[in-house]
Amino acid sequence: MIRVKVVGATGYGGVGITELVLQHPEAKLVSLIAREDVGLPISKVYPHLEGFCDLPVLASDDPRAAAPADVVFFATPDKVGMAAARDELAKGAKVVDYSGDFRFTTAEAYADYAMRIGKDPSHACPDLLGRNAYGLAELHRDEIRQADIVGNPGCFACSCILGLAPAAQASLVEPYSIICDCKTGVSGAGKKVNAAYHYPARYEQMNAYKLSGHQHVCEVERELSLQAGTDIKITFTAQVVPVCRGILSTLYGTLTRPMTEAEAVALYRDFFKDSPFIRIYGSDASIGTLNVRGTNFCNLVVSVDARVNRLRIVAHIDNLMKGQAGSALQNMNLMFGLPENTGLNRPGIYP
Amino acid sequence: MIRVKVVGATGYGGVGITELVLQHPEAKLVSLIAREDVGLPISKVYPHLEGFCDLPVLASDDPRAAAPADVVFFATPDKVGMAAARDELAKGAKVVDYSGDFRFTTAEAYADYAMRIGKDPSHACPDLLGRNAYGLAELHRDEIRQADIVGNPGCFACSCILGLAPAAQASLVEPYSIICDCKTGVSGAGKKVNAAYHYPARYEQMNAYKLSGHQHVCEVERELSLQAGTDIKITFTAQVVPVCRGILSTLYGTLTRPMTEAEAVALYRDFFKDSPFIRIYGSDASIGTLNVRGTNFCNLVVSVDARVNRLRIVAHIDNLMKGQAGSALQNMNLMFGLPENTGLNRPGIYP
Amino acid sequence: MIRVKVVGATGYGGVGITELVLQHPEAKLVSLIAREDVGLPISKVYPHLEGFCDLPVLASDDPRAAAPADVVFFATPDKVGMAAARDELAKGAKVVDYSGDFRFTTAEAYADYAMRIGKDPSHACPDLLGRNAYGLAELHRDEIRQADIVGNPGCFACSCILGLAPAAQASLVEPYSIICDCKTGVSGAGKKVNAAYHYPARYEQMNAYKLSGHQHVCEVERELSLQAGTDIKITFTAQVVPVCRGILSTLYGTLTRPMTEAEAVALYRDFFKDSPFIRIYGSDASIGTLNVRGTNFCNLVVSVDARVNRLRIVAHIDNLMKGQAGSALQNMNLMFGLPENTGLNRPGIYP
Amino acid sequence: MIRVKVVGATGYGGVGITELVLQHPEAKLVSLIAREDVGLPISKVYPHLEGFCDLPVLASDDPRAAAPADVVFFATPDKVGMAAARDELAKGAKVVDYSGDFRFTTAEAYADYAMRIGKDPSHACPDLLGRNAYGLAELHRDEIRQADIVGNPGCFACSCILGLAPAAQASLVEPYSIICDCKTGVSGAGKKVNAAYHYPARYEQMNAYKLSGHQHVCEVERELSLQAGTDIKITFTAQVVPVCRGILSTLYGTLTRPMTEAEAVALYRDFFKDSPFIRIYGSDASIGTLNVRGTNFCNLVVSVDARVNRLRIVAHIDNLMKGQAGSALQNMNLMFGLPENTGLNRPGIYP
Repeated sequence: MIRVKVVGATGYGGVGITELVLQHPEAKLVSLIAREDVGLPISKVYPHLEGFCDLPVLASDDPRAAAPADVVFFATPDKVGMAAARDELAKGAKVVDYSGDFRFTTAEAYADYAMRIGKDPSHACPDLLGRNAYGLAELHRDEIRQADIVGNPGCFACSCILGLAPAAQASLVEPYSIICDCKTGVSGAGKKVNAAYHYPARYEQMNAYKLSGHQHVCEVERELSLQAGTDIKITFTAQVVPVCRGILSTLYGTLTRPMTEAEAVALYRDFFKDSPFIRIYGSDASIGTLNVRGTNFCNLVVSVDARVNRLRIVAHIDNLMKGQAGSALQNMNLMFGLPENTGLNRPGIYP
Repeated sequence: MIRVKVVGATGYGGVGITELVLQHPEAKLVSLIAREDVGLPISKVYPHLEGFCDLPVLASDDPRAAAPADVVFFATPDKVGMAAARDELAKGAKVVDYSGDFRFTTAEAYADYAMRIGKDPSHACPDLLGRNAYGLAELHRDEIRQADIVGNPGCFACSCILGLAPAAQASLVEPYSIICDCKTGVSGAGKKVNAAYHYPARYEQMNAYKLSGHQHVCEVERELSLQAGTDIKITFTAQVVPVCRGILSTLYGTLTRPMTEAEAVALYRDFFKDSPFIRIYGSDASIGTLNVRGTNFCNLVVSVDARVNRLRIVAHIDNLMKGQAGSALQNMNLMFGLPENTGLNRPGIYP
Repeated sequence: MIRVKVVGATGYGGVGITELVLQHPEAKLVSLIAREDVGLPISKVYPHLEGFCDLPVLASDDPRAAAPADVVFFATPDKVGMAAARDELAKGAKVVDYSGDFRFTTAEAYADYAMRIGKDPSHACPDLLGRNAYGLAELHRDEIRQADIVGNPGCFACSCILGLAPAAQASLVEPYSIICDCKTGVSGAGKKVNAAYHYPARYEQMNAYKLSGHQHVCEVERELSLQAGTDIKITFTAQVVPVCRGILSTLYGTLTRPMTEAEAVALYRDFFKDSPFIRIYGSDASIGTLNVRGTNFCNLVVSVDARVNRLRIVAHIDNLMKGQAGSALQNMNLMFGLPENTGLNRPGIYP
Repeated sequence: MIRVKVVGATGYGGVGITELVLQHPEAKLVSLIAREDVGLPISKVYPHLEGFCDLPVLASDDPRAAAPADVVFFATPDKVGMAAARDELAKGAKVVDYSGDFRFTTAEAYADYAMRIGKDPSHACPDLLGRNAYGLAELHRDEIRQADIVGNPGCFACSCILGLAPAAQASLVEPYSIICDCKTGVSGAGKKVNAAYHYPARYEQMNAYKLSGHQHVCEVERELSLQAGTDIKITFTAQVVPVCRGILSTLYGTLTRPMTEAEAVALYRDFFKDSPFIRIYGSDASIGTLNVRGTNFCNLVVSVDARVNRLRIVAHIDNLMKGQAGSALQNMNLMFGLPENTGLNRPGIYP
């Protein structure tokens, strides 16, 4: 059994990986670390876990927090994982980090990202940056299998990259024409209370935010540029709507050559033919984010606006699953030589 | 493997049992029957099932609908199950029916119920009424194990009976003092569209309905009277609030003798000590319906209003799980000699 | 023009009275006082007010906060209004207070209430307790007209008292049989963020809270006892459901004598015949809280459960209007000799 | 007093104009016409209107439906208004139609639109097409003042045109680069029940629809082309999210020349300097659709993505107000020589 330690266990990212590990046939939880609710059983913090996981929440300096683990999930903000990763590696664990700390493989790329989010641009362990991989399994399976550390993608980034990678790779769209219009459910903002996500302020609200620049742009542009073999720059809009779980990203790019929807659909299906969590649809599909809630799937609707020669992809994910804990578990599976959908192969519930 | 047939497969009750059977280690789906969407793969009707279950929806007279099954779930309205049950039994199947058709074990009790809901009071197969059991496992485990037919409880009834059975059995409350104030999520009304459940009419709406009498009253009074060994009559109020899944039933009864909350909690814990899906809490618990969503649990908060000598129980269930498909699967497990929580032992997801 | 000062202007209670005064033909805002967002125009805090009210938020010690006013609304927590009321009265203003500070007319009754909510039982200005009135216009019109200070009712209390006053006055129900099962929308908890009202924790949640005792019980029992001329004690359950605005209170009492629904409806209509904001319905009405949202109406559905001889009233209000700012303005109208529905006579919007 | 007749009175568009006229100082309702609920008082259909408007719903052939009116609002689907307009004009009334029937001023333009929505391309009264105006007051005030018939804009179209008209007029963006990514609340689909808008199917759902072409594209392209003096073609995406009221349209165009946000904001403010319902913000504003709910305002956030030289406008309206009944009343005001904000100058309520 893969022994699992979760740091940041009391946030939504932490409870997400906890729920998944509880149902994973080859993994088990050994310790839950957090800064809040220390000493409480996790099932007091999250009553739905009662009887399933009653481990105590430990402070990071609790001796029990040092119990041996095979993998450590850092469900933590920027700068936390990089401060602790070296230690965990030394103890023989592999690391999956949810933040931007290990999404970049050079100190320069990290610095560029860190400055964008107003953080110290220096990385705490630049020497580790060769041992990490970007944790989007559909594009980096082999690197993830080899990596000691995986930087889990940002939730918006995951939807945008999956939605545009086939087009980028095939040079279907003009490099500077891409627009990512992204809508997220409120759980994307995490568990921490905030005036903007107080129920009465949110239940009937839609808004855009961070119009001056969102931190996920870096990784989207890096990944799409990699696929395209040329520099790609995007316009990115983050928006919040009153659902709990779900990202709907509508992605636009000017076609470099005329193309029918059928051709585009075929190209997407081929690109993802070995990816069990990607489903491709044409524009006549009646689907939405509710159809992937609670699952690790990314559903992509591929369409072409022939009047203006534009490709339009609508990407649907559960931001807490494929956008976070689901991808994290998929990465763990790859790192430990398991089929990537182990413990993740469930349809969700409806409605 | 237990071969499962679902009748009424395209409703919420049908998709619920379908989702559960897909994850059950000892059961598999063999046919899905419905009146709507005939001919479509079920995964076109419910896209989240794509790749998990792509069986076609069959008309009841389709030859493939007659494929042998070990259990048939009738996720259908009143009068459907009773018209087909004899045939299924003859072919060797056991039957679980969601409606009121088999919740009563005498023709008289059925007639009383049928008249209350404005239906023909005669039962189509009164001779089968000895072979059925009321499908609330926590109270009727042994009868369910023996039964050929199980009448699955009504969703409200399930919450009220579980919440009051210990008090009734111990004669804690005055027989005519009981009030069941019940709030359900909208999924309780099923998949069929209705002006009252159109999103704009509902998103910010709370209301009571059927004040002149709700069909679940019969079974609640029957079950509580059985437990108490005396006639019990209740006041029942059905209300709808804008959640999707969940029933919150607040249950009141005048105590026959003074009692502390601690005593009441202890009595409830003892009553349900062998029931894996019941959790008992005191009045200081911070729980709600969200904590049981997607699960087969019934969480009960037990409190005493000492100022006026009244017992108050707050029952929480997922109306589509413990209140419907979850109980149905629990019943199947019992009928086939499996542990009752097989395929049901999951915590749900949060948030 | 009645010059209006609002203390606690940045909370939901404050913005509620601000919106109402802006549309009142005989009143105008002169100053807005709060502890947060001091110095900002109120239209920065509440952008919907831009162009309608751009007054700055003032600290209470700002000289501009002392500008003369004819009425001061204290949309503030307990203990704030009583500390400042004497001063405002001395300057010639009348006072409407939203908290429990002036809901009781004797120091003893206040002490009883204060202890229940864990506050200092001594009142800061017991000598003023003769000059105040309980601000439920339908029961205390004349006292409100004469009063210098009005203690606005609690939101739950408003719905319970209006729903049961006719029954209490006519001695229709047993004094110790009353149960108030109350459900509120989330705005009832105010603007302050709270883990329980974070959108993801709330959007699909129903729960009871404060089972050990809610502060509104005091005033409900006092008012009903006054109507009945005998001591009345209630069981009260507070519950939260995911709507923004609305209280649905389902009220039960054992009838002292058999009675038809028609008789009860007639008695209620007669009791409220001079109350423009009360509408009475029988059990066949299709109404809910959405139908009073944004208005000062209280809609009451009157029914009798003849099987067990019980009266059941379903009361519907907007907790921020009839339950708060609307009643406050209605009280102001009475205190200044205006028709009580001045500036309040609007139907709301649907959906 | 302007005598008002509403056709299609029982839909959301009908009840919207009814609510507004009830509060208009110079207008009064004389008759309400609909095909459903005929004979009922409108206050039975919409209980919030009880005591405010209890007029009966009349069939169109009811003699009382022919009572003289000064203005007739057709809150009806395509083809209804054009069949009745001539008659109403002959009787001396002016007409405001909500559908596409009178949004186009030539038979050719109408045919193009009608074919796009799969309707008969011939107009029932092409001779009237000179007497109509497109009912977006901010762009066509003078024509509306002169017109006998006004074609009220589509809700999405209203947000897109207002958001892009200044840029189009100033030739700020490349004509074929425009993308309109639009999200609407569910009330935009009207009162008619629909499986996609059943509460359980919608409460946690986001989806795009009509990807192959939306009927509002015609009028957006026509209006923007008019402003620009050159042919403009757009990519338009319609999406639904689970709010009741609100449209959030995020609008993109490649700048024809570098421009700062401040310059763009200034240009927008100047364009709308005489429009009382338009508010312009920079990218640092914290606003959303909740801040315009229940009002006739259109709030525009203007930003520039300098990295890729793109203009981005976020438009916020209430789809049932500025997007429908509010614009309709604003048009009536202009047609009758009243200030355009008469009866509309309210801030809405929050939260």
